[in-house]
Amino acid sequence: MYFASDNTSGMPAQVLDALGQANDGYAPGYGADALMDGVRARIRAVFEAPEAEVFLVTTGTAANALALATLCPPWGAIYGHSLAHIAVDECGAPEFFTAGAKLVAVAGENGKITPEALGEVLAQAGRGVVHHVQPGALSLTNLTECGTRYSPDEIAALSARAHAHGLPVHLDGARFANALVAEGCTPAQMTWRAGVDALSLGGTKNGLMGVEAVVLFDPARAKGWELQLRRKRAGHLWSKHRYLSAQMGAWLEDDLWLDLARRANAMAARLESALAGRAELLFPRGGNMLFARWPRGQHRSLQAAGAQYYLWPDGQNLEGPETEEVSARLVCSWNTTEAHISQFLAAMGQA
Amino acid sequence: MYFASDNTSGMPAQVLDALGQANDGYAPGYGADALMDGVRARIRAVFEAPEAEVFLVTTGTAANALALATLCPPWGAIYGHSLAHIAVDECGAPEFFTAGAKLVAVAGENGKITPEALGEVLAQAGRGVVHHVQPGALSLTNLTECGTRYSPDEIAALSARAHAHGLPVHLDGARFANALVAEGCTPAQMTWRAGVDALSLGGTKNGLMGVEAVVLFDPARAKGWELQLRRKRAGHLWSKHRYLSAQMGAWLEDDLWLDLARRANAMAARLESALAGRAELLFPRGGNMLFARWPRGQHRSLQAAGAQYYLWPDGQNLEGPETEEVSARLVCSWNTTEAHISQFLAAMGQA
Amino acid sequence: MYFASDNTSGMPAQVLDALGQANDGYAPGYGADALMDGVRARIRAVFEAPEAEVFLVTTGTAANALALATLCPPWGAIYGHSLAHIAVDECGAPEFFTAGAKLVAVAGENGKITPEALGEVLAQAGRGVVHHVQPGALSLTNLTECGTRYSPDEIAALSARAHAHGLPVHLDGARFANALVAEGCTPAQMTWRAGVDALSLGGTKNGLMGVEAVVLFDPARAKGWELQLRRKRAGHLWSKHRYLSAQMGAWLEDDLWLDLARRANAMAARLESALAGRAELLFPRGGNMLFARWPRGQHRSLQAAGAQYYLWPDGQNLEGPETEEVSARLVCSWNTTEAHISQFLAAMGQA
Amino acid sequence: MYFASDNTSGMPAQVLDALGQANDGYAPGYGADALMDGVRARIRAVFEAPEAEVFLVTTGTAANALALATLCPPWGAIYGHSLAHIAVDECGAPEFFTAGAKLVAVAGENGKITPEALGEVLAQAGRGVVHHVQPGALSLTNLTECGTRYSPDEIAALSARAHAHGLPVHLDGARFANALVAEGCTPAQMTWRAGVDALSLGGTKNGLMGVEAVVLFDPARAKGWELQLRRKRAGHLWSKHRYLSAQMGAWLEDDLWLDLARRANAMAARLESALAGRAELLFPRGGNMLFARWPRGQHRSLQAAGAQYYLWPDGQNLEGPETEEVSARLVCSWNTTEAHISQFLAAMGQA
Repeated sequence: MYFASDNTSGMPAQVLDALGQANDGYAPGYGADALMDGVRARIRAVFEAPEAEVFLVTTGTAANALALATLCPPWGAIYGHSLAHIAVDECGAPEFFTAGAKLVAVAGENGKITPEALGEVLAQAGRGVVHHVQPGALSLTNLTECGTRYSPDEIAALSARAHAHGLPVHLDGARFANALVAEGCTPAQMTWRAGVDALSLGGTKNGLMGVEAVVLFDPARAKGWELQLRRKRAGHLWSKHRYLSAQMGAWLEDDLWLDLARRANAMAARLESALAGRAELLFPRGGNMLFARWPRGQHRSLQAAGAQYYLWPDGQNLEGPETEEVSARLVCSWNTTEAHISQFLAAMGQA
Repeated sequence: MYFASDNTSGMPAQVLDALGQANDGYAPGYGADALMDGVRARIRAVFEAPEAEVFLVTTGTAANALALATLCPPWGAIYGHSLAHIAVDECGAPEFFTAGAKLVAVAGENGKITPEALGEVLAQAGRGVVHHVQPGALSLTNLTECGTRYSPDEIAALSARAHAHGLPVHLDGARFANALVAEGCTPAQMTWRAGVDALSLGGTKNGLMGVEAVVLFDPARAKGWELQLRRKRAGHLWSKHRYLSAQMGAWLEDDLWLDLARRANAMAARLESALAGRAELLFPRGGNMLFARWPRGQHRSLQAAGAQYYLWPDGQNLEGPETEEVSARLVCSWNTTEAHISQFLAAMGQA
Repeated sequence: MYFASDNTSGMPAQVLDALGQANDGYAPGYGADALMDGVRARIRAVFEAPEAEVFLVTTGTAANALALATLCPPWGAIYGHSLAHIAVDECGAPEFFTAGAKLVAVAGENGKITPEALGEVLAQAGRGVVHHVQPGALSLTNLTECGTRYSPDEIAALSARAHAHGLPVHLDGARFANALVAEGCTPAQMTWRAGVDALSLGGTKNGLMGVEAVVLFDPARAKGWELQLRRKRAGHLWSKHRYLSAQMGAWLEDDLWLDLARRANAMAARLESALAGRAELLFPRGGNMLFARWPRGQHRSLQAAGAQYYLWPDGQNLEGPETEEVSARLVCSWNTTEAHISQFLAAMGQA
Repeated sequence: MYFASDNTSGMPAQVLDALGQANDGYAPGYGADALMDGVRARIRAVFEAPEAEVFLVTTGTAANALALATLCPPWGAIYGHSLAHIAVDECGAPEFFTAGAKLVAVAGENGKITPEALGEVLAQAGRGVVHHVQPGALSLTNLTECGTRYSPDEIAALSARAHAHGLPVHLDGARFANALVAEGCTPAQMTWRAGVDALSLGGTKNGLMGVEAVVLFDPARAKGWELQLRRKRAGHLWSKHRYLSAQMGAWLEDDLWLDLARRANAMAARLESALAGRAELLFPRGGNMLFARWPRGQHRSLQAAGAQYYLWPDGQNLEGPETEEVSARLVCSWNTTEAHISQFLAAMGQA
């Protein structure tokens, strides 16, 4: 009953095997390994972006912060949803990497920003007034922190608004694959065709040990060298880089990444169906995450039975009346099983 | 013939196996995995430092920069050898992580700082004068960048000098195990008993995929929370942290880390003997690295035969007269073989 | 008709004369001038704080950012009102000086934070969770950006809440003197007796050419050397420092600073009375600033007549229906005259 | 007998008068004052640089650090003489403002860098190697810290070398006027015609209360907005900016700045002549600074008589044998008098 996060799961066999194979022999370090050439070529092909540049790092926080530092100057404002990972869960990494940019919250239902809300914030941004930080970048998240999803059209509308104000667009894709297969569109449609300039392509929450790719679509930035130097300078350039390449290579091969995401999404759909009538769903499910609320008593039963998940939002606890409803976040991963779900429902029913 | 760096080698079977075992099932993220409890306990035992705190990251640059940022304020001077990795090979990571501290070079033969040289630099440091950066920290490297070695007594003498000026002491131990087994002392003797306050304990160059431990011996800093927050904020807190713990656990188990270092050192000793009479050794060998010079013509033969190593210092190349001597760095690793050495000598002899 | 800001006014004769006197002869630089000894002693006496430390700089942004950097670590959250100068009008200076701390907005009517609102934000702050920035400091502003005022009791209640969470308290006193004389309390009551650890004591908006004092009340910080080094490192240590000391010395002498503030407040009171019946006041007036709204047509008349003031909030303009009400900020300074007010009302009446 | 620094002197009457005149009435803040338009136009005319942009700040450290941050990225190396003010006397301000760039010392006799020495350092810089900070900017100082002087041709040769490597050139002109009048060339010849991209034009050491201008000659940077935002963000944008403009306006009017520099240089020449035979001059005098050595006994007499000057280099003191020679720095300013020099010589002779 592991629904706490998709990062509590391990790697599928293909990825572990790839690590073993990469382990043989000697390889040059720091990204000069032959496997990386394959990864770069494959990502360019998958994204239909022959001039994109690709950089591997090992955490989503690093991917986001490096991408944002490349897009936004120290005196810039980064617009993102008030619940965004970059704003809430990275201990100020974007501020650190950008040398002090300011994250400006944009409100929006279901964890999503609307072009109107973005427009309003930009209208008040004080562009051209030296006393104010200047509009710097837009950062979207797909799947969102509420487990909802932007369609390519929605992303395109937001990007258009951002670009009209001269802002580059970053997409935090910690759960990009889950969004992609749920949407049924191409990687290009979800990214550069919709105006995305830089993508954090998340592997860790979808079956890798710890690899994320920063993909720069914007040709000028892709050709530049800035992100590479920032990565080194932040201690994120791996010396035995082949092990990152190997993971991502296996993940992309035969569309494993899409299969893993489909499995996670399918389990979330099953869980959603099973909860119908027992719990109130909080947001429209976009992929492999659910937010729902049900009586505190059942939470107690679940936790007694060892179910792993987070109450939501942060800081909730189980003190209080038995019948009061408390919200939870439930995340399925590529190796969530039907048995986990059955056990969960059984424990929930015992209250 | 892979003598370019000890980071071009892979992992021994024990470490790869540990990754496979860690892959089973689910584990909490961000360092709350049970394996990390074992690693922490083991490092405390090995270093006879029951109150030390241990933080895993995946690159030496991250370990060094995080340790230094914890030891030194933004207006501090970090004293280190002019060839130190932190000064030359980290693209300014210490400056970035410390928010602008200044690296001050201390000269010294064979890549080693003497207490006298440190004393001279400190005497001119302008402590108490607001116009000057203030003495902040001492950073030593063992093995040094020249492959030489500090003894515990030498470290103690330098630490005493630093502490007398109120400076904490950092030890960059990218090749700590190689130094340790060559010296034949205990980990405690090489570190906190010799006055070291923070250690970057390198695993990557000695058989791991990518793990370094920052070990804080200084009790006040160990108890604090600063390094943990800095690690997160720098994107260096792994979500699937168990895979870092697993590597380091296997490495420490049954003293594997010492065995690996002994093998590397033994191969370097063999290579050194073999080169005697053919090349001039540049520095007294401290562990698994050699620096030597021989005629350019033999370098050409070696490179034609596919031998992997760096000319030294950076920026040398093979243009020039056949008989002129050119220096090289040769590094042995845990899986360097006698065959590599024989082939190397054979290729060298063909000139 | 100069109501745009109290920083469009010049210096009173006493201050200009003091500059002339300070100009004679030679004086040591960088704060070692004898005049500074007098300023330090006088501020300690005025604030009944014999161990406070005093640092002069030339802008409020510098004073605030230096104070905050001394109070709050890079991974800290600085709590302040959503309209606070540090959040809105300093182009990210606090983020720059702190190396990336995060400004967290606390809402509140009339530009004031309530202990309850602060408590709520602190309850959600995630203290102890490594993913979140950690509570770092509270920053209050008095007079507030809405021209309202905190009483010493209100400050004490907020400080108590902050201190209970381990947070030091900063007071942005760009208009401290205006608040002080309006409140009729002592400087000590408004600051350290109410729990303030660091004060930005504003002189520039109250008759100086460009001097603000950072006053550290917290004994540990006052004794330390950090702020002095930060000031130098930020380029804010004046070499001909005597000219800063001279200004502030003259300002404090014979309570000139309080007289100037009283004059400004009195003019604001007069303007407030005169506007009664013609305009709607937006906030309870705390000192020398008014916010009011009246029909756009009258704004047009005023601006045609050369009246200087800002529409409020930022970004308003005079396009739109004649009768619609538009808000304005009106600031009186030590040399605002009754004639200015009469002219203003006359121009307003011509619509 | 004030020879400690040219910043222990006050302002000439013209500058003080200008402050008084600027004090009348009201003026818009933050650089929008009419006086600034005059200053900008005058500097453009004086430097024959109609597209140059001009920014006033109040310390040389701020001017240098802001200029360098605009020229050099965080991962850049700033090449300067090992004695340069930016390297030694600014408490790490360049590192702070640039977000961690590295100052790389270039050696050279008499405080001057040679193109050859610069070329050698650049040859070893590791451009294109991700592990190394990348060549970022060249910073020269004229007059140098040794009181010597670069000719326009020397600057041009160094700039050409820098530009050939893609490096912009900064000139720290804390004593620019002294160099200029000594050289007898035009401001343009000493700056942009010699390849200088950004100048810190020092007023404070040459008669102003505290004003330095950053002049951006490079057209792309001059048109940009970066330096303006950096200035605000660093707390260096004055609200009552007219007082900075007024000073600089008076200084430029009727070539007062050149007259002041000529007076200081002339006094230094007189002092130099007077010292001939009594002391050994250390460097060829370039303007208003002398470095000389003479017996310790005479230093003691001088200091007993109240002579103000620094022993040199930093950290020297008067303990030791009477006859041993000790070096000193002697600086003349615009209001040094012949009487000062006579008294100095008299006191020196009493030993």
